[in-house]
Amino acid sequence: MTDLSAVKAALRGQSIELPSWAFANSGTRFKVFGQPGVPRTPQEKIADAAQVHRYTGIAPSVALHIPWDTVDDYAELAAYAREQGVRVGTVNANVFQDDDFKLGSVTNPDPGVRAKALDHLFACIGVMDATGSADLKLWFADGTNYPGQDDVRARQDRLAEALEAVRDRLGPDQRMLLEYKLFEPAFYTTDVPDWGTAYAHCLKLGDQAQVVVDTGHHAPGTNIEFIVAFLLREHKLGGFDFNSRFYADDDLMVGAADPFQLFRIMYEVVRGGGYDPAEGIAFMLDQCHNIEAKIPAQIRSVLNVQEATAKALLVDAGALDAAQRSGDVLGANAVLMDAYNTDVRPLLAELREEDGRDPDPMAAFARSGYLEAIAAERVGGRQAGWGA
Amino acid sequence: MTDLSAVKAALRGQSIELPSWAFANSGTRFKVFGQPGVPRTPQEKIADAAQVHRYTGIAPSVALHIPWDTVDDYAELAAYAREQGVRVGTVNANVFQDDDFKLGSVTNPDPGVRAKALDHLFACIGVMDATGSADLKLWFADGTNYPGQDDVRARQDRLAEALEAVRDRLGPDQRMLLEYKLFEPAFYTTDVPDWGTAYAHCLKLGDQAQVVVDTGHHAPGTNIEFIVAFLLREHKLGGFDFNSRFYADDDLMVGAADPFQLFRIMYEVVRGGGYDPAEGIAFMLDQCHNIEAKIPAQIRSVLNVQEATAKALLVDAGALDAAQRSGDVLGANAVLMDAYNTDVRPLLAELREEDGRDPDPMAAFARSGYLEAIAAERVGGRQAGWGA
Amino acid sequence: MTDLSAVKAALRGQSIELPSWAFANSGTRFKVFGQPGVPRTPQEKIADAAQVHRYTGIAPSVALHIPWDTVDDYAELAAYAREQGVRVGTVNANVFQDDDFKLGSVTNPDPGVRAKALDHLFACIGVMDATGSADLKLWFADGTNYPGQDDVRARQDRLAEALEAVRDRLGPDQRMLLEYKLFEPAFYTTDVPDWGTAYAHCLKLGDQAQVVVDTGHHAPGTNIEFIVAFLLREHKLGGFDFNSRFYADDDLMVGAADPFQLFRIMYEVVRGGGYDPAEGIAFMLDQCHNIEAKIPAQIRSVLNVQEATAKALLVDAGALDAAQRSGDVLGANAVLMDAYNTDVRPLLAELREEDGRDPDPMAAFARSGYLEAIAAERVGGRQAGWGA
Amino acid sequence: MTDLSAVKAALRGQSIELPSWAFANSGTRFKVFGQPGVPRTPQEKIADAAQVHRYTGIAPSVALHIPWDTVDDYAELAAYAREQGVRVGTVNANVFQDDDFKLGSVTNPDPGVRAKALDHLFACIGVMDATGSADLKLWFADGTNYPGQDDVRARQDRLAEALEAVRDRLGPDQRMLLEYKLFEPAFYTTDVPDWGTAYAHCLKLGDQAQVVVDTGHHAPGTNIEFIVAFLLREHKLGGFDFNSRFYADDDLMVGAADPFQLFRIMYEVVRGGGYDPAEGIAFMLDQCHNIEAKIPAQIRSVLNVQEATAKALLVDAGALDAAQRSGDVLGANAVLMDAYNTDVRPLLAELREEDGRDPDPMAAFARSGYLEAIAAERVGGRQAGWGA
Repeated sequence: MTDLSAVKAALRGQSIELPSWAFANSGTRFKVFGQPGVPRTPQEKIADAAQVHRYTGIAPSVALHIPWDTVDDYAELAAYAREQGVRVGTVNANVFQDDDFKLGSVTNPDPGVRAKALDHLFACIGVMDATGSADLKLWFADGTNYPGQDDVRARQDRLAEALEAVRDRLGPDQRMLLEYKLFEPAFYTTDVPDWGTAYAHCLKLGDQAQVVVDTGHHAPGTNIEFIVAFLLREHKLGGFDFNSRFYADDDLMVGAADPFQLFRIMYEVVRGGGYDPAEGIAFMLDQCHNIEAKIPAQIRSVLNVQEATAKALLVDAGALDAAQRSGDVLGANAVLMDAYNTDVRPLLAELREEDGRDPDPMAAFARSGYLEAIAAERVGGRQAGWGA
Repeated sequence: MTDLSAVKAALRGQSIELPSWAFANSGTRFKVFGQPGVPRTPQEKIADAAQVHRYTGIAPSVALHIPWDTVDDYAELAAYAREQGVRVGTVNANVFQDDDFKLGSVTNPDPGVRAKALDHLFACIGVMDATGSADLKLWFADGTNYPGQDDVRARQDRLAEALEAVRDRLGPDQRMLLEYKLFEPAFYTTDVPDWGTAYAHCLKLGDQAQVVVDTGHHAPGTNIEFIVAFLLREHKLGGFDFNSRFYADDDLMVGAADPFQLFRIMYEVVRGGGYDPAEGIAFMLDQCHNIEAKIPAQIRSVLNVQEATAKALLVDAGALDAAQRSGDVLGANAVLMDAYNTDVRPLLAELREEDGRDPDPMAAFARSGYLEAIAAERVGGRQAGWGA
Repeated sequence: MTDLSAVKAALRGQSIELPSWAFANSGTRFKVFGQPGVPRTPQEKIADAAQVHRYTGIAPSVALHIPWDTVDDYAELAAYAREQGVRVGTVNANVFQDDDFKLGSVTNPDPGVRAKALDHLFACIGVMDATGSADLKLWFADGTNYPGQDDVRARQDRLAEALEAVRDRLGPDQRMLLEYKLFEPAFYTTDVPDWGTAYAHCLKLGDQAQVVVDTGHHAPGTNIEFIVAFLLREHKLGGFDFNSRFYADDDLMVGAADPFQLFRIMYEVVRGGGYDPAEGIAFMLDQCHNIEAKIPAQIRSVLNVQEATAKALLVDAGALDAAQRSGDVLGANAVLMDAYNTDVRPLLAELREEDGRDPDPMAAFARSGYLEAIAAERVGGRQAGWGA
Repeated sequence: MTDLSAVKAALRGQSIELPSWAFANSGTRFKVFGQPGVPRTPQEKIADAAQVHRYTGIAPSVALHIPWDTVDDYAELAAYAREQGVRVGTVNANVFQDDDFKLGSVTNPDPGVRAKALDHLFACIGVMDATGSADLKLWFADGTNYPGQDDVRARQDRLAEALEAVRDRLGPDQRMLLEYKLFEPAFYTTDVPDWGTAYAHCLKLGDQAQVVVDTGHHAPGTNIEFIVAFLLREHKLGGFDFNSRFYADDDLMVGAADPFQLFRIMYEVVRGGGYDPAEGIAFMLDQCHNIEAKIPAQIRSVLNVQEATAKALLVDAGALDAAQRSGDVLGANAVLMDAYNTDVRPLLAELREEDGRDPDPMAAFARSGYLEAIAAERVGGRQAGWGA
């Protein structure tokens, strides 16, 4: 039997980080469809993110993306976030949109370009120092499009060198989180294509380096929860970039494509101790809204993670263990599915009401008039983001 | 034994169509890397395409993309092409970059948007009338991102209605070529996701409707040459959009990722009669150069198709048939591989020299100074293409 | 609002067919793990299948597989089934386990082998005549392993010829259901690899030929519910072989790998009229139990289909249509997800109790002692099935 | 410029290991098609393997599979091999075909089964001691079919424990080679599913543990040559199981599905120093012949590896490096492709003639009458292998 009050307590401690860029325009290579009220400044993105936290209560931090969120005074930006009821979270380094990075950033064959990329990474650590952010998230678009284009192994040497330099620059309470991705924008080799590559580098870098699992960055058929379980066992799981996909890196709302997979991932997180704050896992969203309204889509994603977490917490661990140990294939599967098939929405509504929130965050936000207000106010200017 | 003079004659008759947009800037959703000398007008794209034909001798036509290649006077554009030594080929309709098409074009739930999309398709037929183009290529980005977002079946009804309207507008010597694509930019359903869907619609539309196979538009593991063989048997193969991919729709240079697959495709084309001009197959390139120089990359792609074709023509049909009929698995495979393993570059160099061309088109173009000239001349203005 | 009594009535009309071979031993190429009590005769398989119907009430028919289920007197077998409370359903033709079929059956390059295969198909129609079965299910393992091994197009000619001969032999109330499969056991080309190929053949064969969708037979990323919706629109969907997979044709229990996909499929069935008995869709299970107890696994699969169907029936069609028409992406998705997230198990338990059944079929069967009884009784003899 | 005499010398030093099981019957889960002359004893398998070496000159060792190749006196078997002109190579442990291993071997939830599995692994080391084999190859079919079936993390603990026990038993000149595989026969989780998992375990196990790359064991889209380059950089690549695939683990002849990929792999081997005997890479074949004659298919595979190696050795390293460093995407790709497009068959024929062999191994073996002889002699008895 699962203890419902313990489940509720665990759910109250949940913390999901929102990406500032999810509030700005984004899209596919074919078209970026704009939306009314799109933020024009980092502050406006933070204000939008604060709305998500206001209605869900479990999204208290916002990740920055540099240079998209460049400001003159980062301490001031952090203070602004606190005023909005949230805080600045992970700092994401962008070394893929400068013309110099056409053939790579930290793995570029040109030492001058590599130095430029490294300078940007150092600058991001500077932003962390100013905002109090603890985590530097590193995703490298580096790779090649054609066989022979560059030396695969030399690029690993360059990568290792850059990562070491970053590690040496980190403060004692700061981490570097290394993200992997199978492909895109590189189409032949990618320099950090899978968890094994990220893990191997992080192992050498030491305790301040950990792996980030973006749920959309795997080959078809990859069992993501296995990776999660494995990295937790090694204490090398640094965090998640949650989103969902049917095909490639579709970057759809979390839980939209395969809610059962999201549940299985959250189950392994819980089972492996990753839900314990002491483990330090950063639960981040990273999705690319193209056709849906951004703030409600972030609320929906947060709720989807929350529902999957509630189901994972509801798994009867004792019954599952007994069935597993006795080799009862159908019985063990049934214990897990019983939790998944439970409709946890009433439980979560109750939880919200107990905490003084509206039981239906989507409806409450819709009623608030916020979307209409920003559409009216945010006229002119240019959105700060993606293709900015 | 294969008759080499017949092979050469067949190779002399080859005709590959270049896409105007391949000469303009393009890229991934993360970044479009610009290049010096990028064309600013449809005329400049045609001039660049003419260079490819000049050095290869087998790329005599250029596909247009509307509205990227919009001009006031299409007849004049066609005349310009002829002056350059090429001709205007297929007209490609773009109904995916207008804000109104966010939720689809011809399958949009809004009838007003559907009408707007159809008007654009009619306008493209107008361009065909003016330029003498015979083929209208239809690729629809239409689809949905989320389960439930729209009615999958109703979208098929709308699609069928639009396609019929287009068919009714075609002149007697015009065709419509329907392209399919598994995903992107739609990430849950795509309205024409596979050859079966395209085929079923074309069958109802009649003889003027045929299927286009883009070699990058399939699920992993799909046997493309099977589709080619099947459609040829049904006389429903209208043409190809050649490019190559390791992962999704990577749009790399033709033959760069899997030259053996390209050979197998060309073998089925030859075997199924698709190389006979009477069959009317349009051999088009459609690739998206992001990091490589565009004109040389088009030359490389044309040469790769030519080499694969030469190998396909070299297959000893008699020996293959005998081995197949006798159930000699290893023997039949060996006949095919013998052709593939042949280095046809000397044969093709000889062919070019016999025709008064430089035996090495890549080197000849590089020596010509054309790239340096356009980089110097084409300063200012804005490229006409992709995100234009 | 959905009418619950209508949902219940619809669920009472559900009919899922069980495969006789699912009760016999089966496995992977690496090992077939046997189980105690495995059926030694077709009658014992039917008896086991009848247990599934007894506890679920919605599995009233059993598919045969010839020659695995060969008996001297098929009318007697049909009578035996009726005594057990079920009936004989689809007849499945096996033309892949005879040594002569090494290079194919109906598409074999050897005309003698083709004739032998056709004779077997005719014999299966004879079984249908004797048992009163209405449907002949055709899955061909035919294909090639190596490029060049056989002529892809000639194999289509041979396939078409065989299918026409089968069609001509069918009685007026009989159907042929053509199944497709991407790969395995053929690893280069498969002669009916996808729905498009099956559809094209069925179209020419006329009204008595329809396509079967096996949910495990697609390339990664294929949107199966799109195919279902498309075939229903064309009235060419003949039925399903339900099972589930994470990777290839894993043949796991239905709904075990992706319950959300199963729901989406059943939603398209309902939406497209396929749940109406008049449409004649055969809902069959086809899974390959290797490590789990077979009868309980079939009960579990039937329940999983039932739960997915209940959720599909609960979708608020009016609300969905309104959201779709207004372009409300998040709203439309939410309507669908609301049904999916509903825990329908209490509703189904209530339904069973109203019908005089145990509310928990798995537990009731476990209590019955049937498994223990057959393990004790069925000693000696050889199982009739798979590798028999 | 590449030095041809150095290329020839390198090719003369090549050594490819043959799997004993490739000469026995094998197949798919649907059917194992037998062949005349199939070996009935380990000795007959070795005799067949010796034929491959006789005609190619580069296949001097044969891997054993225990228990398929169980004999009373392994020293005698090793002596027999030497008489045949070959030697016993890697010992492959089979812990997947005993009924006790239904839910796993070394990761089974039952400690008794785990002990039994470990005993078998120790017995395999005994075979190594007796035959002088240096390498123990470990492939575990262990995994689960259903979510919840067993504890993913506990299975890693059990795996680590077993691997340590094996490592402790190894002699100082022996290695353990850990193979990974994405799926099959397990269909939900596999305990060693990818190179990252194998690498992480090997790292902890120390210098005597290395990773084996089976070219058919990856998710669609995986860049295998990247893995090869990465493991070589870490000195953790122990060897290859070569075969080829279009879909899953098809186990086709090496180089049959994607000869360009095989070339790219061999290029990374050469570039990363893996072709140097001092690196100790074991180049093994592992394929599953179902419809093709086994000995000729092994010859074909050896020749395909040899051709890919020759092309890899022909790459102009200086020109490639210069183009890569200057960021010349098309130029660098062209250097690599120039080698790949070269027809190396004349060079290899010349090499064989210089060494006193027939220039055409396939034809020479066919002329030898060996196949006819074994078909006549090996009558009766039962094949020793796969499903034996």
